Amino acid sequence: MSLLVVGTVAYDAIETPFGKTDKILGGAATYISLAASYFTKNINLVSVVGGDFDKKYLEILKKHHVNTDGIQIKENEKTFFWAGKYHIDMNTRDTLDTQLNVLADFNPIVPDNMRNPDFLMLGNLMPSLQMKVLNQMKERPKLVVLDTMNFWIEVAIEDLLKVISRVDVLTINDEEARLLSNEYSLVKAAQKILDLGPKYLIIKKGEHGALLFNKEQVFFAPALPLEEVFDPTGAGDSFAGGFIGYLAQTKDISFENLKRAIIFGSATASFCVEKFGTERLIGLSQEEVDERVQEFINLVQFDISLVD
Amino acid sequence: MSLLVVGTVAYDAIETPFGKTDKILGGAATYISLAASYFTKNINLVSVVGGDFDKKYLEILKKHHVNTDGIQIKENEKTFFWAGKYHIDMNTRDTLDTQLNVLADFNPIVPDNMRNPDFLMLGNLMPSLQMKVLNQMKERPKLVVLDTMNFWIEVAIEDLLKVISRVDVLTINDEEARLLSNEYSLVKAAQKILDLGPKYLIIKKGEHGALLFNKEQVFFAPALPLEEVFDPTGAGDSFAGGFIGYLAQTKDISFENLKRAIIFGSATASFCVEKFGTERLIGLSQEEVDERVQEFINLVQFDISLVD
Repeated sequence: MSLLVVGTVAYDAIETPFGKTDKILGGAATYISLAASYFTKNINLVSVVGGDFDKKYLEILKKHHVNTDGIQIKENEKTFFWAGKYHIDMNTRDTLDTQLNVLADFNPIVPDNMRNPDFLMLGNLMPSLQMKVLNQMKERPKLVVLDTMNFWIEVAIEDLLKVISRVDVLTINDEEARLLSNEYSLVKAAQKILDLGPKYLIIKKGEHGALLFNKEQVFFAPALPLEEVFDPTGAGDSFAGGFIGYLAQTKDISFENLKRAIIFGSATASFCVEKFGTERLIGLSQEEVDERVQEFINLVQFDISLVD
Repeated sequence: MSLLVVGTVAYDAIETPFGKTDKILGGAATYISLAASYFTKNINLVSVVGGDFDKKYLEILKKHHVNTDGIQIKENEKTFFWAGKYHIDMNTRDTLDTQLNVLADFNPIVPDNMRNPDFLMLGNLMPSLQMKVLNQMKERPKLVVLDTMNFWIEVAIEDLLKVISRVDVLTINDEEARLLSNEYSLVKAAQKILDLGPKYLIIKKGEHGALLFNKEQVFFAPALPLEEVFDPTGAGDSFAGGFIGYLAQTKDISFENLKRAIIFGSATASFCVEKFGTERLIGLSQEEVDERVQEFINLVQFDISLVD
């Protein structure tokens, strides 16, 4: 089934305790699309880049079954740029530089042939832009997933609440869930956030895994314990991409299948952090993905029967 | 099968964002024994208290199938006392007061009829005392589990390493694992710690669950997402108690059964944090325990078959 991804395509400069990079490929929509490509082959990407954007990256996306026709190229402007530095625990980072560039006046026009997706992933963007995309859909997609961040909760809460009320799945991290709900307990936070409209809430806890809530149920998937987290940039977006890619592949949006999608999303994210930026997400084999999913199964599955 | 628990029986005064207590029943061996009592009925406890220790607590332990004959009562001394205060995130606490009292010159003499246990749980104590207990065993128990803390890693590392080399399972928290191994990555830390002798390592991550390692495998169990963590005191010991209690009940020390034991331990610990101190661990019904274990199963189980 078709998947439409809307979000940033960017240049990132990253510093971790293991090294640093110059401008490399980044952006939420990039990570989402690459991750989704391991599960579904019908991906459309809507974004914006500047004239400085290296065309080889478009080729990489195309090789990953991503239709890049929806990426506006503004020849006289520059690509969105973010620079950040991670600390030893990899859970905290400092933003060193943010240059909005093309993003400052981005108007996400979805090409006509992309306005009828089965699945829609709204990557982290200004909430009013996410709403603009939603309003361009010819029919309500089967499933709409929205990602956002603390910044929009702080500066654009009204627009954000409007768009949240119209999506099926909201993905945010634990701190954002607390900020949005004003509840410290994630269980209480989840119930308050589900009251805002979405049927499902995914709370991402980084190295501590992810929680999936609906009003009656909760499911938890751990992150894979790794020898070394090399660079966490894009892990959350890779998770979301694997998640929605698996749903688009299996065409099943039951809670049971969302649980599976969370495991596939976690497996995809676990590759992302092994190298800088998108490097590890490019050109994975089906065997590598399957093997990683099997590692997750081994990590958490046990056999208890409570018949005494 | 018989279980011998050695560790502190104490008075605690606890302050959390939800309230505070005067002196209430506490101590590692107390939590361990109460938790284990839901799985095995043959528990011996070796510890020490002062003349100020309320005998009603001994009755509570006895009702939980705990033989308290190994608890030395020093009539002219006072019971070990700890006072602590938790912050809003419940992951950090300040120690407000520690009065060793009877613990200062504790000599753990294991009564003769308790020197041949099938399972031995060495709760957090000075490592030389843990060794003293181990040396009193007539035969090597089927399984020895040892808990310790950052303090002993810092002030008694040589004694600690000696006793660690002689146990089967070491349980510590994530910070302690990093301190003991000098590795930030828990995967690397685990491999270094397993090189010290134990066959299994359990790394407790509080609200983020627990990891079980042997040299080839890893298993992860989450903590149950709760509406409210009321008081985390004793959660780690309740976990250890449920863990070893389940093993003593099932008499199976395979990796597969250790995985199950971790789930039962996590379920038991999830009760502990719902009220102050040991309150919630006293008088649980089998139905409550089974129901909680079922919640864990629902929380993490999914069905993925990788046959494409």
